Amino acid sequence: MTLTEKLKTIERDGRQLLLPIWRDGEKVFLIDQTKLPFSSPVYEMTTVEMLGKAVKDMVIRGSGALGLAGAYGMFLAVKQHGSDQKALLQAANYLKSTRPTAVNMMKTIDEMLTRVFKADDFLASAHAVSEEIVDRQLSFEMQLGNHGAALIEDGDTIMTHCHSGAVAGAGYGGRALSVIRAAHESGKEIEVIVNETRPYLQGARITAWELQQLNIPFRLITDNMSGYCMSAGLINKVVVGSDRVAANGDLANKIGTYLHALAAQDNGIPFYTATSSHTIDFDIKRGGNIEVEMRASNEVTSFGGIQTAPEGTEALYPGFDITPNHLISGIITEKGVVTPEYTENLAKLFKEDESNV
Amino acid sequence: MTLTEKLKTIERDGRQLLLPIWRDGEKVFLIDQTKLPFSSPVYEMTTVEMLGKAVKDMVIRGSGALGLAGAYGMFLAVKQHGSDQKALLQAANYLKSTRPTAVNMMKTIDEMLTRVFKADDFLASAHAVSEEIVDRQLSFEMQLGNHGAALIEDGDTIMTHCHSGAVAGAGYGGRALSVIRAAHESGKEIEVIVNETRPYLQGARITAWELQQLNIPFRLITDNMSGYCMSAGLINKVVVGSDRVAANGDLANKIGTYLHALAAQDNGIPFYTATSSHTIDFDIKRGGNIEVEMRASNEVTSFGGIQTAPEGTEALYPGFDITPNHLISGIITEKGVVTPEYTENLAKLFKEDESNV
Repeated sequence: MTLTEKLKTIERDGRQLLLPIWRDGEKVFLIDQTKLPFSSPVYEMTTVEMLGKAVKDMVIRGSGALGLAGAYGMFLAVKQHGSDQKALLQAANYLKSTRPTAVNMMKTIDEMLTRVFKADDFLASAHAVSEEIVDRQLSFEMQLGNHGAALIEDGDTIMTHCHSGAVAGAGYGGRALSVIRAAHESGKEIEVIVNETRPYLQGARITAWELQQLNIPFRLITDNMSGYCMSAGLINKVVVGSDRVAANGDLANKIGTYLHALAAQDNGIPFYTATSSHTIDFDIKRGGNIEVEMRASNEVTSFGGIQTAPEGTEALYPGFDITPNHLISGIITEKGVVTPEYTENLAKLFKEDESNV
Repeated sequence: MTLTEKLKTIERDGRQLLLPIWRDGEKVFLIDQTKLPFSSPVYEMTTVEMLGKAVKDMVIRGSGALGLAGAYGMFLAVKQHGSDQKALLQAANYLKSTRPTAVNMMKTIDEMLTRVFKADDFLASAHAVSEEIVDRQLSFEMQLGNHGAALIEDGDTIMTHCHSGAVAGAGYGGRALSVIRAAHESGKEIEVIVNETRPYLQGARITAWELQQLNIPFRLITDNMSGYCMSAGLINKVVVGSDRVAANGDLANKIGTYLHALAAQDNGIPFYTATSSHTIDFDIKRGGNIEVEMRASNEVTSFGGIQTAPEGTEALYPGFDITPNHLISGIITEKGVVTPEYTENLAKLFKEDESNV
């Protein structure tokens, strides 16, 4: 496959990174993740509205990548509206509305607004702050990868759900795949079991593709096979990403995560979420308070343009589910691995210097 | 949709039945379930080998329908081999090998052999015994439907997994859909949540289609959404079919069943399997002893002719998983609903008159 010819790769600390969204001069580009791995069109985003539509249509997705999209989206808004604060606030609200569960994007949008509004030159500030945000996210990704890799043992088979990898993040390995990539780069012999993740098949399409590029051995399963694989002894760790972590450690993540966590508990298998402080929401006390995005019915009743159910079939599509904290063995972050009791331990690690984040 | 024009429907007790496989004179026909609901080709089966291939390729599937396939398959074998007992035993072994987890098919094949071998006229006996088996399966289906319907309350939303319906059974509603159909026919207002059931989408394709024909309201979900739907209060009963029940009540059923049972338990939702004595295997003490069929990798990496994962991707495809008995609230059978302790209560109900089965 020569698809990477079109993709944006850069080097950092001797490692090749694969970017989901990037700026070139004053222009913002992204790759269409709905087409991966079979093609990888690159689109220029000229307005915040265009970027918002790409977010809504999952052309760009993944908690980390959406953080970057928040930063670059507000950069585009400043290009469009200059120092018109009212227009910038409207743009921010619009962008936030496109994926209401994406806390990292909310945070980067708010950080852009707060810091740009204090500057004399809005455009210069939007440029500098967005770069700083992107750099910080990438650093966190590499740090959390190293912390998580310490949990992985030589010979482990690790299951992951959906795609929490480079193009869902800032280019190294997002969250879950940063842990897996760092373990592999440290010389551990590991294998991965990849859930395909209906309805969009981010696991089958994108996680599988990134693992191929990293030469990490993997096997694919459908979302309903994790229980069997665990009870048959084929999996001994689970590492997933996170869309949002509540103050008490409850996890909002791609639909299906909760089922895998139940199966891991029933089989005595450690279940980890890889996240960063950007995705921990201390304003949300518990998972039950997280709004779960309901998406369109027709995203479930068809696949790749093929109808999967009889005409007239109605479907439900909750984008996320909530995994209660008692099913989670550890929360892997850029500052280390947090274990229960989560409310106390997350606050201890992050709340004291929240202003730095 | 006018697909039913090609299908075989008959009336029994005032209800319309939809047959998965039937005999017309000395000829055996079946519908291709891999194409449902978008088309419904009917094929004539002229040899036991042809029928075995149809079983292996899931052209005919479902625990009850495979029981019928066992009976009609041995009828075809007798047509081919007359009273050559060695050839008939070989044919039986071949047919059994095509779906090693299908206990009901094993049983009907053995019943055909045992009874035909005692007869003077093998062909006449094969004809009569196969009809008797098919009739008995249909009666059991209607009986278990009535027993199960008593568990369903007005206003219930029932989740089911895969397809355990008419064309997976003997034409009324198989197992799970016999319970749902009987509840509906008794006047209860019910709704159904249907799991699509990857990789073959039997839920999305066939369960949805049968429910449409019965005018029972339903909504479709992907296999990874049951946990969310249960925790959101959208489901209050689970009824699934069964591929095999061990003597202690452990359930082998379509891959994913175990995950749904875990989620039901975590949310305090009753989880039932609908089965019949044909599918209870008293020779198997516990679920761990049931052989789980591993199917081909490429059945997971493609869908409807579309590749879902990058080239070179290896997949796992366990066809079933094992749901331990402690997750099961009741086992619905033609003789009533069995509750724990299962080893004792199943034996009490069925072992005493096993010779009648």
